[in-house]
Amino acid sequence: MAKLKASAFPAFKQFATATSGRNMTRSAYVAVACGVAAMVLLTIDAAHPAMHYCLDVVLWGCLAFFVLEWVIRLRHAFDGGRRWAYVFSFRGLVDAVSALAIPLALAAEVNLRSAWLFGAFWMLKVVPGIPGLRQLRRVLVLESRPLLSVLVIFLMVLLMASVAEFVLERDVQPAEFGSIPAALWWAVATLTTTGYGDVVPITPLGRIIAAAVMICGLGVFGLWTGILATGFAAETRRDNFLRTWETVSKVPFFASLAPATLADVTHMLRTIDLPPRTTIIRKGQAGDCMYFIASGEVAVDLPGKKVTLGEGAFFGEMALLGNNLRSANITTTRVSQLLVLDLVDFRLLMARHPDLAETIDAEAKRRVQENR
Amino acid sequence: MAKLKASAFPAFKQFATATSGRNMTRSAYVAVACGVAAMVLLTIDAAHPAMHYCLDVVLWGCLAFFVLEWVIRLRHAFDGGRRWAYVFSFRGLVDAVSALAIPLALAAEVNLRSAWLFGAFWMLKVVPGIPGLRQLRRVLVLESRPLLSVLVIFLMVLLMASVAEFVLERDVQPAEFGSIPAALWWAVATLTTTGYGDVVPITPLGRIIAAAVMICGLGVFGLWTGILATGFAAETRRDNFLRTWETVSKVPFFASLAPATLADVTHMLRTIDLPPRTTIIRKGQAGDCMYFIASGEVAVDLPGKKVTLGEGAFFGEMALLGNNLRSANITTTRVSQLLVLDLVDFRLLMARHPDLAETIDAEAKRRVQENR
Amino acid sequence: MAKLKASAFPAFKQFATATSGRNMTRSAYVAVACGVAAMVLLTIDAAHPAMHYCLDVVLWGCLAFFVLEWVIRLRHAFDGGRRWAYVFSFRGLVDAVSALAIPLALAAEVNLRSAWLFGAFWMLKVVPGIPGLRQLRRVLVLESRPLLSVLVIFLMVLLMASVAEFVLERDVQPAEFGSIPAALWWAVATLTTTGYGDVVPITPLGRIIAAAVMICGLGVFGLWTGILATGFAAETRRDNFLRTWETVSKVPFFASLAPATLADVTHMLRTIDLPPRTTIIRKGQAGDCMYFIASGEVAVDLPGKKVTLGEGAFFGEMALLGNNLRSANITTTRVSQLLVLDLVDFRLLMARHPDLAETIDAEAKRRVQENR
Amino acid sequence: MAKLKASAFPAFKQFATATSGRNMTRSAYVAVACGVAAMVLLTIDAAHPAMHYCLDVVLWGCLAFFVLEWVIRLRHAFDGGRRWAYVFSFRGLVDAVSALAIPLALAAEVNLRSAWLFGAFWMLKVVPGIPGLRQLRRVLVLESRPLLSVLVIFLMVLLMASVAEFVLERDVQPAEFGSIPAALWWAVATLTTTGYGDVVPITPLGRIIAAAVMICGLGVFGLWTGILATGFAAETRRDNFLRTWETVSKVPFFASLAPATLADVTHMLRTIDLPPRTTIIRKGQAGDCMYFIASGEVAVDLPGKKVTLGEGAFFGEMALLGNNLRSANITTTRVSQLLVLDLVDFRLLMARHPDLAETIDAEAKRRVQENR
Repeated sequence: MAKLKASAFPAFKQFATATSGRNMTRSAYVAVACGVAAMVLLTIDAAHPAMHYCLDVVLWGCLAFFVLEWVIRLRHAFDGGRRWAYVFSFRGLVDAVSALAIPLALAAEVNLRSAWLFGAFWMLKVVPGIPGLRQLRRVLVLESRPLLSVLVIFLMVLLMASVAEFVLERDVQPAEFGSIPAALWWAVATLTTTGYGDVVPITPLGRIIAAAVMICGLGVFGLWTGILATGFAAETRRDNFLRTWETVSKVPFFASLAPATLADVTHMLRTIDLPPRTTIIRKGQAGDCMYFIASGEVAVDLPGKKVTLGEGAFFGEMALLGNNLRSANITTTRVSQLLVLDLVDFRLLMARHPDLAETIDAEAKRRVQENR
Repeated sequence: MAKLKASAFPAFKQFATATSGRNMTRSAYVAVACGVAAMVLLTIDAAHPAMHYCLDVVLWGCLAFFVLEWVIRLRHAFDGGRRWAYVFSFRGLVDAVSALAIPLALAAEVNLRSAWLFGAFWMLKVVPGIPGLRQLRRVLVLESRPLLSVLVIFLMVLLMASVAEFVLERDVQPAEFGSIPAALWWAVATLTTTGYGDVVPITPLGRIIAAAVMICGLGVFGLWTGILATGFAAETRRDNFLRTWETVSKVPFFASLAPATLADVTHMLRTIDLPPRTTIIRKGQAGDCMYFIASGEVAVDLPGKKVTLGEGAFFGEMALLGNNLRSANITTTRVSQLLVLDLVDFRLLMARHPDLAETIDAEAKRRVQENR
Repeated sequence: MAKLKASAFPAFKQFATATSGRNMTRSAYVAVACGVAAMVLLTIDAAHPAMHYCLDVVLWGCLAFFVLEWVIRLRHAFDGGRRWAYVFSFRGLVDAVSALAIPLALAAEVNLRSAWLFGAFWMLKVVPGIPGLRQLRRVLVLESRPLLSVLVIFLMVLLMASVAEFVLERDVQPAEFGSIPAALWWAVATLTTTGYGDVVPITPLGRIIAAAVMICGLGVFGLWTGILATGFAAETRRDNFLRTWETVSKVPFFASLAPATLADVTHMLRTIDLPPRTTIIRKGQAGDCMYFIASGEVAVDLPGKKVTLGEGAFFGEMALLGNNLRSANITTTRVSQLLVLDLVDFRLLMARHPDLAETIDAEAKRRVQENR
Repeated sequence: MAKLKASAFPAFKQFATATSGRNMTRSAYVAVACGVAAMVLLTIDAAHPAMHYCLDVVLWGCLAFFVLEWVIRLRHAFDGGRRWAYVFSFRGLVDAVSALAIPLALAAEVNLRSAWLFGAFWMLKVVPGIPGLRQLRRVLVLESRPLLSVLVIFLMVLLMASVAEFVLERDVQPAEFGSIPAALWWAVATLTTTGYGDVVPITPLGRIIAAAVMICGLGVFGLWTGILATGFAAETRRDNFLRTWETVSKVPFFASLAPATLADVTHMLRTIDLPPRTTIIRKGQAGDCMYFIASGEVAVDLPGKKVTLGEGAFFGEMALLGNNLRSANITTTRVSQLLVLDLVDFRLLMARHPDLAETIDAEAKRRVQENR
């Protein structure tokens, strides 16, 4: 069926190609957002019957979309030979659940309104597209030892406090502290400093222990945060270095540098990716960085003429060398990848690598003369 | 009208000039504080009628002030040629709303007491004057990728938990968990560890999920903080370097340094701005830093005479070289900008740059002899 | 008795040897988990009598296990001559309490169900096995000065706020704020931002003070976290350096380095311990690190043959030098200790130490030729 | 009177000398603790009359102590010529309030039980003795710009949210949200994530705004912590450097180093102060640092003899060079100040400064031979 359609409609063909690719398509994001919103709204009783009808239409539409998406991807995976790699990958499983959970629920004679609740799984489709997720996971893995020990301490405090409160409060408040699981409910709400207040110790000793648990809560929290902060500091530096190293090697300006110098320069640069027609520099603004073009093209809007700069060129250095104000608008003309050199690092670079400083200085002078 | 007044009253002219400048005037801060305070107090029913009358007067006064301010700035912008730049800037829009919201509300026949509530917008006038805001925004922009991924995780946990609790609790507590939006209200109060306690799960499974949500709350919080801490560490260093670099270049003492040395020295210094008649050093106190004067002037209160030191001079080095106690009071005579060199960095500087050490040493000896 | 059994059953002999060692055995972890779980479940009234019987059996079993464990360890300690060192160490005391608390409670005619609550002490047996605990303790010790001062501030705010609220609220809410200890209960729940809501100030001034306490709570929390984050950053670096230094010295590849270079290289490496049959590298994946074998052995799964690499060898460098994709599966064959060199540090190493770079490059070329 | 007593009792003379010094005496700490505890217990109604009598005695005793302390210090200050410096210093004012508040309250015919509440001010006497307070204050001062901007954002969110909830909820819950100050009470409990739950929005729009406020609360918290963490990292390094620099200069071992090397070494060392009879090293333990004696003396407990090491000596290096286990007990004999060199830094030091390495190596060899 998918084949038939693909030959019939070029638009569908394009859609099928995009869908079978690695990343989420924009339409998939829209479908997830609409589907989940509709699922949430459907549970409001007061809503109008007409609206319920609309929501049902949206939900059926989303379900159809996800089934179609899954079929296309399955076909692509089997065509490509990597049959089971996709099916049992995280994405493959999420796609399968998104497509099959609701029909299976209906087949098992679950009420339609309850079946739609399985639409919650649609949200998982967004996971692989979250930008910093890989970075986050690396931090959790690398810092797993101290994080784990904080977790064990957390659980130990939790259980100890529950037993203590159970002993102290069970006679006074049998409904609230009548068993250790009930006391655990109080302990977790207290140790995380949530503090619902539905269960509260009332004996003096019970309150002293509760106070200790709250203070422990702050401590556990502080340790947790401290560990993650440490991990993130290291990971952010690493991530930036890796992304920038790839790009730096493409820029001829840096090609002649010795490896040790190159590593030093890479630490100073930052990579940014820009869509076409983005204004990078606005005339008259204060400038605090310069740019190297790794790929793409920018247009400089000089009075009377337009100059384009291609791969390997740099711009924005005049504001850093001179009076601090940008002298022209500069806009991307294509998808471009730029390396940003911050003012602080510009100065350090000029100081440490006089040869680079001369090249940039000479170019800046040439441009000033040309613009007169 | 503004023209007439400006020619009539020199004080008004001065006010108009100050107002049309970039920064908030002191009177504007006072007006915002008074206006907002009056607006808050006006909502207390129990207050005396006479007091209500007073508050009304204050509010009308503030409104008049903000209208006047807007008119002056509009006129200045149109005179200066940058017509629409101001009108559609953040400041321009806030000024317009501050001046127009209440009259328009009255025109739309809103009750006067309700109309005054629009005075809440006056607070936005303070935003451009917040000192560290630019720094804050840079951190949020640079760390946007990991922050965004934490936010997506936050939302996902929120929605998943709501659906789960809706399924588990809807039959037992239809009023509290009768729809997913109602469950979302519980979830957000739990995941942020706020824990109002107005809605609390009571089924065993519901409580286990709630406990997991609370622990996730700690985790999300920790990640969030860790990311921001990392960003701030980098940004604070950068900000200080930039501010200090400007100042260092004005001090002749550092003028002869090679660029690489200068970058090193800049990392060690910190810029401070002081109003006149501020005591920088108090005789007899322990000294832990020395100062270079980038601009302004200080008076040294020696026994029997007063010595003034101008731009480029340094002081406070004697306590660092000798017995650690300050030997004289030193006070600014004008608005001054100083560079502070901390004791730690003083020692590193002395160690790394022996030529600077000699200059400071020689000057300190000269002063000791002179003071005898 | 233990002797008799030990000669009778070789399995028991093995168990006795494992138990007398320093680390927790796996069976001890299982016993702790089962025992504590049974203790928790036993407090649920609604549970079936038959289940209660089962739980009792589990608990008696765990108790027997812990008594046996203590006896074996005591005997081992007395045989080894270090008689009292074990008995009065933390582990010795925990073992004693775990074994004796419940029998003693029963001897003192405590109800059996209450006596089982002493099983909570069993959890303490896990403490010496927590991985990052030593690291955690070092941070707390090294940062004890600022942490202590935050704690004193915390207590001071707590007490001041309690006195203030007691004065302000005692007439309005005598039941809630009738004494300073009662007010302290409110203060600790507020300052830790737990906020049960069972006791809430209602006078205007009381609420203003409460608001100040909440904001102080954020501040105390922030300080606490900030201090711990700082401590952890330093400790993590130190811990990694120490673990890696031991390992680096075993690898011949680094043996020829000068001490200063070695310290530099050690900072770049990270030690990991792997069980047998773990896949380290999967063909076709993107590679972002290389490995040195400190001990153990790995098998490279080349097309048609299997190559094993032993101590001192390195692998994974080809993906870093070439096209970024792993060219073969690599699996450990024995318990192995590897040194991981991250892509970022690989590049820095190549840049700073050209001699190492050449060795790695030559080996990589040799391997490529060999594989053809 | 104080004079009379001072001549009469030598013990009192000693007390007077200690009291007039800068630091809190141990008896003062005891008096503060007893006084405050008695004040707290006195407010419990249920307590026995006999106990009330005891508490009264304690309180009168503490008051007498503080009056005496103040008188001694006043006399000392006037004798020393620095009359008003003490009286108007923080300590002087706290001493005055501690001594006079209760008598003045009684003079103003305040009820005795209420008058004792002024004993809360006694706690302030502890403030100058808090160890890390100076460090804490420096962080707050240096980071005041970003902290202030977070505070302004906090207040702005607070007020905006209050106005919004006042508008949305005043008709539905006039008792809870009937005025902006009432709404502010809700807002502060929500934004700090305390969440009492005594006031909760119930309209859908009100709840959406409340959710936004909670999430802002997390954000504000994260920013706050991030800023403080950054400040603490810098301050801890600085504090340690300063304390260590003083000590390093006293150790002859480091006297010959060039200033640049000395600064490098100082960064690696850490100062600790030990009372007499403290065991520093315990035989058989794993060693992870070595020590230099800046002042004081230690005794090495070798088999058969006792060796004492005085100022300038070092010890503990053998475990770092050899088999990792300490070979003898080492104990302080007097109050001693030691410099600790961690294993990590020991290795870096050995690598970077071969001359120091040789000296330590030679000494270690000499000791090994001597011990045979």
